[in-house]
Amino acid sequence: MNDELGVEAPVSTLRAALRDFNDDYAACLDDMNLEAWVGFFTDDCHYRVISQENMQSGLPLGLIYCMNKNMLLDRVTAIRETTMYEPRMLRHFIGGVRVNNVDGDVIHAQANFMVTEALSDQEPTVNLVGQYQDVLIRNEDGFLLKRRDCVYDNYRIRNSLIVPV
Amino acid sequence: MNDELGVEAPVSTLRAALRDFNDDYAACLDDMNLEAWVGFFTDDCHYRVISQENMQSGLPLGLIYCMNKNMLLDRVTAIRETTMYEPRMLRHFIGGVRVNNVDGDVIHAQANFMVTEALSDQEPTVNLVGQYQDVLIRNEDGFLLKRRDCVYDNYRIRNSLIVPV
Amino acid sequence: MNDELGVEAPVSTLRAALRDFNDDYAACLDDMNLEAWVGFFTDDCHYRVISQENMQSGLPLGLIYCMNKNMLLDRVTAIRETTMYEPRMLRHFIGGVRVNNVDGDVIHAQANFMVTEALSDQEPTVNLVGQYQDVLIRNEDGFLLKRRDCVYDNYRIRNSLIVPV
Repeated sequence: MNDELGVEAPVSTLRAALRDFNDDYAACLDDMNLEAWVGFFTDDCHYRVISQENMQSGLPLGLIYCMNKNMLLDRVTAIRETTMYEPRMLRHFIGGVRVNNVDGDVIHAQANFMVTEALSDQEPTVNLVGQYQDVLIRNEDGFLLKRRDCVYDNYRIRNSLIVPV
Repeated sequence: MNDELGVEAPVSTLRAALRDFNDDYAACLDDMNLEAWVGFFTDDCHYRVISQENMQSGLPLGLIYCMNKNMLLDRVTAIRETTMYEPRMLRHFIGGVRVNNVDGDVIHAQANFMVTEALSDQEPTVNLVGQYQDVLIRNEDGFLLKRRDCVYDNYRIRNSLIVPV
Repeated sequence: MNDELGVEAPVSTLRAALRDFNDDYAACLDDMNLEAWVGFFTDDCHYRVISQENMQSGLPLGLIYCMNKNMLLDRVTAIRETTMYEPRMLRHFIGGVRVNNVDGDVIHAQANFMVTEALSDQEPTVNLVGQYQDVLIRNEDGFLLKRRDCVYDNYRIRNSLIVPV
């Protein structure tokens, strides 16, 4: 599947490392530890939450579009200052981690996400499903996201989406 | 858990490799890359989509039953020639990868699948849940499926199921 | 993420081993192999199924609270002797496996669970979502659970929950 990458062993090791990375990223969001979430990105990162429909049509319009780390920080501040909203628990399930290309320390990868939501007096629902399309930079400490497009399959979004994916 | 396999280390490596294999398989279907999907099977493969209920009752009747690779190809052709259907996004989440037996290059394994579906103007739903029951052949390039039974838990299937699982 | 653990390589190996462990645990429950399920615990284990709400409020009240292996066995016996209930298929999807602390053979870890349920004449639903909060003991054969808190996000539980998570 990843013939372009040459040797098989290092790729499977890289996929395993990216599984760990994505699980750490997701745990950070599930814990609403938004300040730490920003630490997963490079200073010059791009972060988008965008529908599959718009992505395929080449429309850059997304629910969220941050063009550097400061914009991520601004977003976190805005969420923290938001007035009361109904208590809820979000939980990420990450699957389908794949490496699409490796060029030195620059890695193109993908993963699938499912976010469940539990609201009071309701059974949990599947809130958002889609794919991370990533460019990561590998350094001595692990990985940083230079680009993460969260491309969701949903045609309709509950208006409750205010936190990052 | 896998005492019959002897040494622990090779089995965990094999499980990791099968996780990668299943994620590649799933990505292929999510991308509707059906021609490449056929490449995951041996020429003499068996591929079934069958309910847990029928499986337990020993009834071979399945939603889909292909008894070799040519029948898979015929199915792909049929799907490609099908008239218009409502646009939808399907996405596979694979978990629970386990090795049940290894006999030389023949591996008996299992995994759980969940397929989500996003239709226009609806929130995503859990479309199909169940278990892959596999016989794989290991070769120098990786694995090929000699048998894949997609045993679904659903008692009811939406009539929209036309693509492979 | 796991800076407290020092070297990166052993932790990723440990995470991979815990993924396997959790997938084995889940398969055991999905197969309703409850007697084998008890074998995943130490004799002096604690096992709870408790809501996130109660957990955060420091209320120890849970749906299930077993304070040693004998109580787990009692529970299994009770389930086996329960009168008829509607046939259903439960399936676990485990994600987000993380190691929080390692102290010799004692490992603090977490994982996310999603349990789907398929009832006759219904489409499958997400029944329960939450997080395992674990203390594991590592021995020569693998791992045993000394403590597993199954902390569910749901505010409401279907009254059908009678089997362990």
